[in-house]
Amino acid sequence: MAEHDQYLIQREPFYQPLAQEVALYQAAWDERLPVMIKGPTGCGKSRFVEYMAWTLGRPLITVACNEDMTASDLVGRYLLDANGTHWLDGPLTTAARIGAICYLDEIVEARQDTTVVIHPLTDHRRTLPLDKKGELVEAHADFQLVISYNPGYQSLMKDLKQSTKQRFAALHFDYADHDTEAGIIVRETGLPQEQARQLVKIAETARNLKGHGLDEGISTRLLVYAARLIKRAIAPRLACRMALVDPITDDAEIRDTLYHAIDAVFGAD
Amino acid sequence: MAEHDQYLIQREPFYQPLAQEVALYQAAWDERLPVMIKGPTGCGKSRFVEYMAWTLGRPLITVACNEDMTASDLVGRYLLDANGTHWLDGPLTTAARIGAICYLDEIVEARQDTTVVIHPLTDHRRTLPLDKKGELVEAHADFQLVISYNPGYQSLMKDLKQSTKQRFAALHFDYADHDTEAGIIVRETGLPQEQARQLVKIAETARNLKGHGLDEGISTRLLVYAARLIKRAIAPRLACRMALVDPITDDAEIRDTLYHAIDAVFGAD
Amino acid sequence: MAEHDQYLIQREPFYQPLAQEVALYQAAWDERLPVMIKGPTGCGKSRFVEYMAWTLGRPLITVACNEDMTASDLVGRYLLDANGTHWLDGPLTTAARIGAICYLDEIVEARQDTTVVIHPLTDHRRTLPLDKKGELVEAHADFQLVISYNPGYQSLMKDLKQSTKQRFAALHFDYADHDTEAGIIVRETGLPQEQARQLVKIAETARNLKGHGLDEGISTRLLVYAARLIKRAIAPRLACRMALVDPITDDAEIRDTLYHAIDAVFGAD
Amino acid sequence: MAEHDQYLIQREPFYQPLAQEVALYQAAWDERLPVMIKGPTGCGKSRFVEYMAWTLGRPLITVACNEDMTASDLVGRYLLDANGTHWLDGPLTTAARIGAICYLDEIVEARQDTTVVIHPLTDHRRTLPLDKKGELVEAHADFQLVISYNPGYQSLMKDLKQSTKQRFAALHFDYADHDTEAGIIVRETGLPQEQARQLVKIAETARNLKGHGLDEGISTRLLVYAARLIKRAIAPRLACRMALVDPITDDAEIRDTLYHAIDAVFGAD
Amino acid sequence: MAEHDQYLIQREPFYQPLAQEVALYQAAWDERLPVMIKGPTGCGKSRFVEYMAWTLGRPLITVACNEDMTASDLVGRYLLDANGTHWLDGPLTTAARIGAICYLDEIVEARQDTTVVIHPLTDHRRTLPLDKKGELVEAHADFQLVISYNPGYQSLMKDLKQSTKQRFAALHFDYADHDTEAGIIVRETGLPQEQARQLVKIAETARNLKGHGLDEGISTRLLVYAARLIKRAIAPRLACRMALVDPITDDAEIRDTLYHAIDAVFGAD
Amino acid sequence: MAEHDQYLIQREPFYQPLAQEVALYQAAWDERLPVMIKGPTGCGKSRFVEYMAWTLGRPLITVACNEDMTASDLVGRYLLDANGTHWLDGPLTTAARIGAICYLDEIVEARQDTTVVIHPLTDHRRTLPLDKKGELVEAHADFQLVISYNPGYQSLMKDLKQSTKQRFAALHFDYADHDTEAGIIVRETGLPQEQARQLVKIAETARNLKGHGLDEGISTRLLVYAARLIKRAIAPRLACRMALVDPITDDAEIRDTLYHAIDAVFGAD
Repeated sequence: MAEHDQYLIQREPFYQPLAQEVALYQAAWDERLPVMIKGPTGCGKSRFVEYMAWTLGRPLITVACNEDMTASDLVGRYLLDANGTHWLDGPLTTAARIGAICYLDEIVEARQDTTVVIHPLTDHRRTLPLDKKGELVEAHADFQLVISYNPGYQSLMKDLKQSTKQRFAALHFDYADHDTEAGIIVRETGLPQEQARQLVKIAETARNLKGHGLDEGISTRLLVYAARLIKRAIAPRLACRMALVDPITDDAEIRDTLYHAIDAVFGAD
Repeated sequence: MAEHDQYLIQREPFYQPLAQEVALYQAAWDERLPVMIKGPTGCGKSRFVEYMAWTLGRPLITVACNEDMTASDLVGRYLLDANGTHWLDGPLTTAARIGAICYLDEIVEARQDTTVVIHPLTDHRRTLPLDKKGELVEAHADFQLVISYNPGYQSLMKDLKQSTKQRFAALHFDYADHDTEAGIIVRETGLPQEQARQLVKIAETARNLKGHGLDEGISTRLLVYAARLIKRAIAPRLACRMALVDPITDDAEIRDTLYHAIDAVFGAD
Repeated sequence: MAEHDQYLIQREPFYQPLAQEVALYQAAWDERLPVMIKGPTGCGKSRFVEYMAWTLGRPLITVACNEDMTASDLVGRYLLDANGTHWLDGPLTTAARIGAICYLDEIVEARQDTTVVIHPLTDHRRTLPLDKKGELVEAHADFQLVISYNPGYQSLMKDLKQSTKQRFAALHFDYADHDTEAGIIVRETGLPQEQARQLVKIAETARNLKGHGLDEGISTRLLVYAARLIKRAIAPRLACRMALVDPITDDAEIRDTLYHAIDAVFGAD
Repeated sequence: MAEHDQYLIQREPFYQPLAQEVALYQAAWDERLPVMIKGPTGCGKSRFVEYMAWTLGRPLITVACNEDMTASDLVGRYLLDANGTHWLDGPLTTAARIGAICYLDEIVEARQDTTVVIHPLTDHRRTLPLDKKGELVEAHADFQLVISYNPGYQSLMKDLKQSTKQRFAALHFDYADHDTEAGIIVRETGLPQEQARQLVKIAETARNLKGHGLDEGISTRLLVYAARLIKRAIAPRLACRMALVDPITDDAEIRDTLYHAIDAVFGAD
Repeated sequence: MAEHDQYLIQREPFYQPLAQEVALYQAAWDERLPVMIKGPTGCGKSRFVEYMAWTLGRPLITVACNEDMTASDLVGRYLLDANGTHWLDGPLTTAARIGAICYLDEIVEARQDTTVVIHPLTDHRRTLPLDKKGELVEAHADFQLVISYNPGYQSLMKDLKQSTKQRFAALHFDYADHDTEAGIIVRETGLPQEQARQLVKIAETARNLKGHGLDEGISTRLLVYAARLIKRAIAPRLACRMALVDPITDDAEIRDTLYHAIDAVFGAD
Repeated sequence: MAEHDQYLIQREPFYQPLAQEVALYQAAWDERLPVMIKGPTGCGKSRFVEYMAWTLGRPLITVACNEDMTASDLVGRYLLDANGTHWLDGPLTTAARIGAICYLDEIVEARQDTTVVIHPLTDHRRTLPLDKKGELVEAHADFQLVISYNPGYQSLMKDLKQSTKQRFAALHFDYADHDTEAGIIVRETGLPQEQARQLVKIAETARNLKGHGLDEGISTRLLVYAARLIKRAIAPRLACRMALVDPITDDAEIRDTLYHAIDAVFGAD
């Protein structure tokens, strides 16, 4: 089916397993349990879902959630054309029909109550009522729902309701350990092992500041950015400032602390 | 009638009666009294309504309520087509016409004042005025309205008005007792009785934390999730963490408490 | 006139006069004064308006007000069809044209300022300007506006403006006295006089709790619900819990108090 | 011109001048100064404007302002028909074109910033730009803008901006003096002079409570209501409760105070 | 060009220069610098812009800003007609195309962020991207942007962003000095010099109360109103109350103070 | 490609490099890393992006972000025409298709959650899902995303989320040093070196007041404005007041301080 193929992952994504998450996801998939992936920014949640979709050979439909997203954006809506209106399935409906993995990225960004549209897809019913179309979609046997969730953002205003949370099995992600993370940098950018370890060391300093002036630690993604700039002949100190520090903080004191950490690792001028 | 049949429950849903709720609902149905089902997340409210619809042989139309839902989403609206506009009944109107049980799930999520559209259907009038269409729908003799309501969510902002509440007879649900709940797990997943009891024991610990760091206890649904993961050869300790603890809390202290409860039941590494 | 007939009350509604409200309404009608019906939930306000419409032989158009209701929902709007747009009168406009009694139920739910559209209909002008249509509707000689209003809901956010209030003569409703209310239950359900009195006794206990943990007392409607369940062979204690207590409170302490009141009347197990 | 005639006042409205307001308005009209009519609810502001329109022989277009009113509701909008869109003048535009008195009733209800559309009509420009139509309407030589304004409502949220206020000459209205008000009641209802004076006496008591539990005093309009009910053979005490007290307060203490005032005037049972 | 001519000022507006504002504006115009006109209500800001447009012989397009104004109201939008949609330039786009002076009156009323659409027109780019049309309008060589701004209104909620402010050269306006203002009144109304001075004297008293109970002083416009009423044979004391005091304050104490100031100038009864 | 060419920068923009920002940007471009440009108002952020686009020979699509901007404004929407609806790419989609640099100016103005639409374009996926069209756009190999960000504006309400920030390498901009800034003024306006230095001196005084009564310092842009007015024969003291002080503050004390700074540099009268 053409629509089905369009959402298949074409090449194996690079993914470095961190613990037993692959086996756990596999079991959840075998049971078609909805899965919640928790973890900080840029630790590889989206990459993991892509990797699992590739491993399972299932199409993947990703939706970046946002506060303005309505239920219609997920489910579908009527469009006007020359012959009146016709219905256009939303990404969730498409995924339910073709048996894709539907990945709702940063689900807490969506309005809390919009998320109730996923409820009938995540219990024994496995159906999606299209109220506006008067149709009840039965989910394809291979349909699975996955959501990502960053606990660091959770606030009184933005949190999932218990009646939503209690429809998911959860996988907890965190940054990789020192050696694994350095290995990821080496493999993704070709930076020498030694420099990769230096970058991870800086990240570890920053991650200790989380909650003490930093909202989040430095992600693996930013380490890869720094490595790529160094590979382009940017001095490591400048590359680290540009990729690791300046994007994540506007606080002069925190910035100085991190600049010093960089100097301690790569040497000051 | 085709529309009627589409909403019939095809197979008998598995439902384990907990008290006299079947007889009480039957009496309310005989009188066509609107019914409010109260109780915590995942204790089987929706399953019960499905079971009663199957038992009574009535079509069931379920609407997952949400804050963005307008009266039009319930009642209907004009759609544009090649010949201008035509009216499309909403789920409430359809239910009133064909004599279905209309189940408004998580009614408190709907805007408090949208709920007034159900008022004329829930008193002696049993009518639904379609103001925009200029039609007054007389409800079918078999129409019944059912709403679910989780008292734990009730807040100053989100509560039903007394003028809405006082239109319903209420059934109070809670988690099943120890033996019944273990039996449900055994029957739904085939897990050995002994392990099912162990899962219920963990749930009981968590339910005691409700209001002391947990917003809700662990639902029967999550126990079934854990059982299904164990049946897929996931170690019970990991299955419980994934299905029972990680979905419901981001608090490190509460998580540790629950992890210890798991270890106490299934043994630590 | 077809439209006129559609809104006529077909059968005499059962209504038990409580005081001189029929004569007072009759005088207001004779003068076509706008009328405000004040009183608690479920004490018979809507039933009374229906009864008066039947008595006067006038069509009755009821609008359940809600916060999302716009002036257009009352007055009318342009709809799109194959030949462009055409105007559709709203219920208030229809009532003004055909000389109906227009009953705006729970007027305080409407946005305070939407209510100003009724102003020119409620002073010496008795007109309704349809600004969007460029038409000035002169109200039919028999048109009358009636609103209901529950003082218990009144808050800083939701109250009628004085410039709206001072356009109405007001009738104050309250629960019927003991004998009258028991008589209503008997007549509506066929319950024996003795049991009807027992139900009223429970209601009186609850009404004393209003403002001390209960937002509203138990309405006559709920007493009728309980009576109907008892007539369906539900034990009185269970019927009272289901119809009188569980719908109106989530507070465990209040619930216990009311359960005890039931036991005191019908005997504990 | 047909449109012009439609807005002419057909019969001389009954209006009892209170001070020099007729001469002052006449001078403002002669200069085409915009006029602001200030005063409490129901003291005759709208009636006065109607009277002046009738006296001057000018058409009167009244707009009841409300919070949902957009600039388009005043100025006009494009409507869709079979040949695409056509422009429909709003009431303000119509008034500017035909030289009517445009009366914006309860202007503070409109969103503060919507009111800026009247600015170019209320300075030396006397123009109204229809931005959406690309037309600049020059006001007819006889066009005049009048607004009403109840200072009692003014709050931090709802007040006119100084840049709006300083475009108007203002007339301050208040309740008529004792004799004049009684005379109005006699003339409007035919009630005997003595009873009319009794009604005014009750109103005077209530007006002293303004700011001490009452938001507004009893208006002349409500006195006329009471008189009409008395003429319909309702006992004066009941008529006064129904027309003067119950509409304006939900406070039991205030209500008792006013009931006593009624008893003091008309005698208790 | 027809469109161009439509916006030309036909007659020289009466404008009394107060300082060097004409030369300063001329220099800004020569450099096509965007200009911000600051000053209190009714001191002649709009009149000055009109005067400069007339002096420079440039068309003037004025937009009264308001909170409901969207970027589309400035820039343009698609309209639907019989052949689908066509684009209609908004006033800002028109001004940019024909080389008009575009005057955004009371810019702070617009939503703070809507104002960013003027940014590319107010730096070296002098372009206006019509994102919805996919067109990049290069401003005509004679296009200039002027905004007015009343510092007295500025609040935390409503202020221009620095990134907007720092795109303008600013001219500070204030009320004219005593002699000039009296001269303006004489010239605009024909009132004798002596009475004009008396009016200015009252205004000066009121302006000293600014910030001590008055939000704004009495504007020159209101002095002209008072003069016009006096010319229509209204007694000066009444004319001053009607034109100078009653429009600007609802505070009884402030009103008395100003009434006394009037009596002090024109003599009490 | 026509669309491509339309967005090419035609002439080399004047840009004075301040540090190593050109080399750093070049390296980020070589890696197609998303870039965040941080810095105060009017320090040349937009000019720099234009300069880099010209240097790299890439088309540049600039979007001025604002709070009302929806995801559709970036991504595209369906438009209605005679044959029904057709899709119109938004600026972000166009940039992704043709390989332009897409510059989102003042990104923090956009609703925080709208910004998630850029996420899949800024990680390894480099895709843009057009959910409403059911198309997944693969970004052109030359597509790059650049955002500007003024840390001074950052507030609790308006800040980028860490999950957005951690997708960018960041370049920190500030005002140029004394000599460079004077050189820019000389080159842009032809003002003598000496006067240019005097203007910079005033700016330096003002920049020291940032955070002590001034939200932002005086930008280079305003210095250029002052220089241009001086070149038009406006006295330097007046030009500085008009271009440097009056636009940026309404505070009388701050204004006096800055006026004195001007007098100290250019001499008082």
